[in-house]
Amino acid sequence: MAELLVTIVCGLLSVVYGIWAIQSVMAADTGNERMQEIAGAIQEGAQAYLTRQYTTIAIVGVVIFAIVAFLLSIPVAIGFAIGAILSAAAGFIGMLVSVRANVRTAQAASQSLGAGLSIAFRSGAITGMFVAGLALLGVAVYYYILTEIMGYAGTSRAVIDALVALGFGASLISIFARLGGGIFTKGADVGGDLVGKVEAGIPEDDPRNPATIADNVGDNVGDCAGMAADLFETYAVTLVATMVLAAIYFAGSDVLQAAMVYPLVICGVCAVASIAGTFFVKLGQSNSIMGALYKGFIATAVISLIALYPITSWVFGGMDVVLTLPTGFSFTPMALFLCGVSGLVITGLIIWITEYYTGTGFRPVRSIASASQTGHGTNVIQGLAISMEATALPAIVIIAGIIVTFQLAGLFGIAIAVTTMLALAGMVVALDAFGPVTDNAGGIAEMADLPAEVRDTTDALDAVGNTTKAVTKGYAIGSAGLGALVLFTAYTQDLKFFAANSDQYGYFQGVTSETLDFSLSNPYVVVGLFFGGLLPFLFGGIAMTAVGRAASAVVEEVRRQFKEKPGIMKGEERPDYGRAVDMLTRAAIREMIVPSLLPVLSPIVCFFAINAIAGKANGFAALGAMLLGVIVTGLFVALSMTAGGGAWDNAKKYIEDGNYGGKGSDAHKAAVTGDTVGDPYKDTAGPAVNPMIKITNIVALLLLAVLAHQ
Amino acid sequence: MAELLVTIVCGLLSVVYGIWAIQSVMAADTGNERMQEIAGAIQEGAQAYLTRQYTTIAIVGVVIFAIVAFLLSIPVAIGFAIGAILSAAAGFIGMLVSVRANVRTAQAASQSLGAGLSIAFRSGAITGMFVAGLALLGVAVYYYILTEIMGYAGTSRAVIDALVALGFGASLISIFARLGGGIFTKGADVGGDLVGKVEAGIPEDDPRNPATIADNVGDNVGDCAGMAADLFETYAVTLVATMVLAAIYFAGSDVLQAAMVYPLVICGVCAVASIAGTFFVKLGQSNSIMGALYKGFIATAVISLIALYPITSWVFGGMDVVLTLPTGFSFTPMALFLCGVSGLVITGLIIWITEYYTGTGFRPVRSIASASQTGHGTNVIQGLAISMEATALPAIVIIAGIIVTFQLAGLFGIAIAVTTMLALAGMVVALDAFGPVTDNAGGIAEMADLPAEVRDTTDALDAVGNTTKAVTKGYAIGSAGLGALVLFTAYTQDLKFFAANSDQYGYFQGVTSETLDFSLSNPYVVVGLFFGGLLPFLFGGIAMTAVGRAASAVVEEVRRQFKEKPGIMKGEERPDYGRAVDMLTRAAIREMIVPSLLPVLSPIVCFFAINAIAGKANGFAALGAMLLGVIVTGLFVALSMTAGGGAWDNAKKYIEDGNYGGKGSDAHKAAVTGDTVGDPYKDTAGPAVNPMIKITNIVALLLLAVLAHQ
Repeated sequence: MAELLVTIVCGLLSVVYGIWAIQSVMAADTGNERMQEIAGAIQEGAQAYLTRQYTTIAIVGVVIFAIVAFLLSIPVAIGFAIGAILSAAAGFIGMLVSVRANVRTAQAASQSLGAGLSIAFRSGAITGMFVAGLALLGVAVYYYILTEIMGYAGTSRAVIDALVALGFGASLISIFARLGGGIFTKGADVGGDLVGKVEAGIPEDDPRNPATIADNVGDNVGDCAGMAADLFETYAVTLVATMVLAAIYFAGSDVLQAAMVYPLVICGVCAVASIAGTFFVKLGQSNSIMGALYKGFIATAVISLIALYPITSWVFGGMDVVLTLPTGFSFTPMALFLCGVSGLVITGLIIWITEYYTGTGFRPVRSIASASQTGHGTNVIQGLAISMEATALPAIVIIAGIIVTFQLAGLFGIAIAVTTMLALAGMVVALDAFGPVTDNAGGIAEMADLPAEVRDTTDALDAVGNTTKAVTKGYAIGSAGLGALVLFTAYTQDLKFFAANSDQYGYFQGVTSETLDFSLSNPYVVVGLFFGGLLPFLFGGIAMTAVGRAASAVVEEVRRQFKEKPGIMKGEERPDYGRAVDMLTRAAIREMIVPSLLPVLSPIVCFFAINAIAGKANGFAALGAMLLGVIVTGLFVALSMTAGGGAWDNAKKYIEDGNYGGKGSDAHKAAVTGDTVGDPYKDTAGPAVNPMIKITNIVALLLLAVLAHQ
Repeated sequence: MAELLVTIVCGLLSVVYGIWAIQSVMAADTGNERMQEIAGAIQEGAQAYLTRQYTTIAIVGVVIFAIVAFLLSIPVAIGFAIGAILSAAAGFIGMLVSVRANVRTAQAASQSLGAGLSIAFRSGAITGMFVAGLALLGVAVYYYILTEIMGYAGTSRAVIDALVALGFGASLISIFARLGGGIFTKGADVGGDLVGKVEAGIPEDDPRNPATIADNVGDNVGDCAGMAADLFETYAVTLVATMVLAAIYFAGSDVLQAAMVYPLVICGVCAVASIAGTFFVKLGQSNSIMGALYKGFIATAVISLIALYPITSWVFGGMDVVLTLPTGFSFTPMALFLCGVSGLVITGLIIWITEYYTGTGFRPVRSIASASQTGHGTNVIQGLAISMEATALPAIVIIAGIIVTFQLAGLFGIAIAVTTMLALAGMVVALDAFGPVTDNAGGIAEMADLPAEVRDTTDALDAVGNTTKAVTKGYAIGSAGLGALVLFTAYTQDLKFFAANSDQYGYFQGVTSETLDFSLSNPYVVVGLFFGGLLPFLFGGIAMTAVGRAASAVVEEVRRQFKEKPGIMKGEERPDYGRAVDMLTRAAIREMIVPSLLPVLSPIVCFFAINAIAGKANGFAALGAMLLGVIVTGLFVALSMTAGGGAWDNAKKYIEDGNYGGKGSDAHKAAVTGDTVGDPYKDTAGPAVNPMIKITNIVALLLLAVLAHQ
């Protein structure tokens, strides 16, 4: 299959770009000895943390591998392993580069803004291309092996189950990495700020603060590795769900092959467009960093848009073929192309809305800054108000996206729109992963006592990083909102398939179109909606508590060091950075387990509980509704947390830029409180909701497969 | 009809109790001249505010009355007027008593705790009995007039539409009163605290603070009148929806009459049980105020439980009659009795859970207090974590309630459970409305310089008021969660009725069981869920912003007075209390309009937008889903806000009791910030979500009636 091979080549290109870029970053100057020493400590801490995190996940993973192999089959379990291992690899490689690019960025920033931007962005692009490339290769190569080498039909259960398991593997890594990394980074950040900035009155990244290395480690394990795993799974799960939907919808039709590889080809083309886009990231005459990044993003989007039309025509053999859904609805590849365009437009709108809500130039952030003048309380009230308000426009964009793409090409149109949205992941991750590098570069500049201008340059880079980080999160959760219907449809179609073939799949006897009722007037559907709805709230609550606990532990550790070694504050004694890193490592690993298992176990509990009370059909109905319930509240919880946190952060920056009294004023103190509150909002609980939503969906699909196997 | 007359007598008894209690409260000693002067200022401010608020609502109300009369009929418009006027009356009377009981409670508290409790509780009970009594009388008497005097059949559209319009009238008052009152009270509270406690360093209720009278006025217009309107509408809407459901389900059956009056009789009996319960509220030897209040509540619940069995048997003519739903599901009155018992158990569980999350004796509040030690940021983080976590258990109770009562008696069973839950409203409102009286009494004691012991007594009463206020909110929103299915079912059944008779109701031609698809796999259903889901977030965001803005205005006004009249702080000059009251009045009225109209207009926009895009049937499906979407997110938003706010408040109290450094410590300052954040959470945005949910449902039902009339 030419299409599949083209996709694989595109995936390989991404990886090749990544390897080339690694060499180019590593060749840069690493600065003076002090800088290298600091960077070394960060590298050591980050590597130690990730090794421990992945070891823990590996234990869970091996158990699940065995269960999947036992309940389903070895090829399915291998799919799970591929998803998990590649996701972990993308995160690990990204982090390894990130902790080496930080010091090089600091050094380059001492020459020029452009040089600093170039290294930081290239480092981010490495993570981005590895995420997109490995995810694409994982799905495409395993699909190739299963269908072309092992000879399974694309629509066979073996292939579908293996692809779903691949998504599950990615999801599992992602929830652990997002949560563990999020707890680590924000425990360090919040704890370090509280005891350093607030109590001891020393600036951020001051080398006297024993938590400062941990804070820089956290940026890498949270914002780089955690985010990479999150986007890897979003990408993989969406791709897989779209392929599964194609397999179900077009089984027996001429267009089956084309429809199944079409999402892969979209991702392949957009991956190449992302590589091309990276070369457009260059400082213009205005010296606008955001402008430079946008140039790269816009180039990627435009190239993708232009390429989408011919490749659609190529895959389907013309633009006037007719595709017909089982509902009888017909459309042409032209409609699918327009769905892809819609996906790009939705991405653009969400970026634009996120920037409005988190950028310092607009009403929301300024209103929080202004409210800081009357104290901590009003800052937080206004921040919460903005965080809630910020959910409305993205939700309306998602609603409009659903309506438009559904009108164009039914549910398959929605799937294609989300796939196209996520096909840009390489570029979007690049924009995001650039953040922790610049954040670290600033920290290294501060700790190594580089001249103030260097710090100004890294600060300018870092401020942009805040916005791009918020944008990525909005993008990830927005795609989840749009993708919810795709995942839910995959679930219902799968269920329908098993129910229709209940002679073969005995467990599904009695589940018929009469007994299975997904209508809102079925109370078990409402029960499922409520049960799903409570998960993001409970999960968010646990995650916030975990950060608070980790931060308190950091505060106490730092206080202890200050007390036992009075020389630290005088700059005569070196703090024990390692202890804070160690402590956070243990805390993060311990705290991530329970909340991560919540979305894994909930679908199973929901199904079997309602099954016991009201029968199988209602159990499946409640489970389906749970999947939508978790997205309905999860979408708003995640959007509000990520936007609110970004707005709080930039409100502080806006004050630091000299407004409302500037640094050190009472308004600034209130803004620091808001920023602290926003930290776990935007970097722990909020972004972890996205993999949480996916994992419930994927587990539900796997549960069906397991029950069918009985 | 004997049952109807008995119900009316019960309703009258509540009103008679209220009138008797008013006389008894008014007969108490009003204290010294200074106290009377202060109370006079509060009375004046509260009356001025409510008069303006109701005038504004009256203008909106008259317009809607005309629209309803034009689009439907005069009797329906009269139903609307009855709901609106009685709701307003209950709130107004309650507030008039409350602002007179405050000074009498302060005076009584100078004699003994028991005497203070007695007057404060009796004042609360007046509001409670007027709410329950007038709501019950409104529904029962108008139903009596329509069916017995005007001769309409109970199942006729005229009766159903009139009852729904009655609920709409109550809802409209409620959303305005909750929001307007909430913005007023929290604008005053937050603003007054910020500038008084934090900036000027004077205690709460210090007479030198120009916002102090406004703060006391706010307690009455928000926590008394606003809450009364909220519970009035919850009561009326639930009662009406249950009757409508009975009319639809049992049309043509022998049990129709019985099923329609059964909810009325439950409310009547429980109203009398509430009156009896008030006499059990007496301080025991332990001097526990909460214990005294619980005695009253438990007595009410037990008497209701005992009475429920015989009256069920009486209404249905025995316990072994068989009731059959259109779905074919059969049950006996015994099952309905058990549903009623379930309603009482759910109420008890929700009270218990709320106390766990907001009481100072348990982990959640203490964890917030403990987190205050490390600063403002960690206090807020932990408070947000608790607020999110606090949604899980109530949601599970609601889920269990749905399952149990549905198993007992289908959807009608759920309706009966909610009705029984709300039948206790008289007692629950009494517990709640006691709060603002004691809060005011404390303020008066402070301002009138009464001895410290008096303030201690009123403080003890006030602390209990915080918990009972949280309990009422949990109860109101919990019933809304359970009632959501009832309202949604009323909507779908109504729709089904019009669709089945589309020869008579021409607009509904083409809406058939084939085209109308409430299944979750219909994208327009998902669109509706998302659209409904965004409303509580947007609404909450707007409400929080409004409070922040009002509070900032108060801060500036107070700062201006302090600056222009330096004698105020020395106690030589009297602040201009009236200006703060005036300013807040204008702010609250102005800010309440837009968010109040949001839930009124959203169902209409949702239906016509989707109707234009995808046809009538999908428009109705999306609208139905919107009703559930608003409850799915609204339930969690409201629960988290009300529980979180209560927990923050009591964490501050826990520190003030001498823990973690006590008053004036850094932990206390952090806890004050948390309390400030919690204020608009628990008293403005959170509780207003409840009427918001109801109003979207009621408007949807009215929309169906209007469309049927075309």
